[in-house]
Amino acid sequence: MINRYKKGYTAERELLHKLYGMGYVVIRAPHSGSSSLPSPDIIAAKNGKILVIECKSRNGAFTIHKDQLNELREWEMRGGAKAYVGWKIARKGWIFLHLDDVMINSGNIGKKFAEEKGISIEELVA
Amino acid sequence: MINRYKKGYTAERELLHKLYGMGYVVIRAPHSGSSSLPSPDIIAAKNGKILVIECKSRNGAFTIHKDQLNELREWEMRGGAKAYVGWKIARKGWIFLHLDDVMINSGNIGKKFAEEKGISIEELVA
Repeated sequence: MINRYKKGYTAERELLHKLYGMGYVVIRAPHSGSSSLPSPDIIAAKNGKILVIECKSRNGAFTIHKDQLNELREWEMRGGAKAYVGWKIARKGWIFLHLDDVMINSGNIGKKFAEEKGISIEELVA
Repeated sequence: MINRYKKGYTAERELLHKLYGMGYVVIRAPHSGSSSLPSPDIIAAKNGKILVIECKSRNGAFTIHKDQLNELREWEMRGGAKAYVGWKIARKGWIFLHLDDVMINSGNIGKKFAEEKGISIEELVA
């Protein structure tokens, strides 16, 4: 678990710096159970456009829990953000799935789904 | 120092929940030297309006360091946010000073300045 945490942390930092390099201001949200308020992993903003991203660094398929999806939705509904799940795939890089698609798929994310619905970081920031 | 930290933490949490109650999504940014990227204490968003707030909980006058002011400015310039210094004054509550005013005053904040330039939380979210 420590390795998975460390791998995820490193991937998130890399994504933060990449978005910063693309002109965004960025923040990595704390997840240490500090509050009951909805919290994605990353918040980024550029000229009033807000992105919130839940990050996963996994080799195989995974599921985002419904509570987590609802927290992302709250950032869209209240904040006016666009919410994504960001998946760092080893040797392939990041792909991003919009919350609507992830919700329709009941939070399940695998390679086929990612190929169909995923967008690159260039498309994310466009 | 531990007491000051704890007091500041409690005040920030209170402000977070207050903004959340006013329809914002909110996040308390980590300050544990986790990155070199600009980071205010609180980021809040509602319908695409972004507020970033540097929080202070002090009884007397204080100065915000120039580096910190520049980080707030970056959230305005890049992110399209509105940046404020939030001052929690004992037995009086929160007042907010816009970054422009704080910069013109070289980062110095005291009671007279706060009375002249400060706005309430209701004015902040209006």
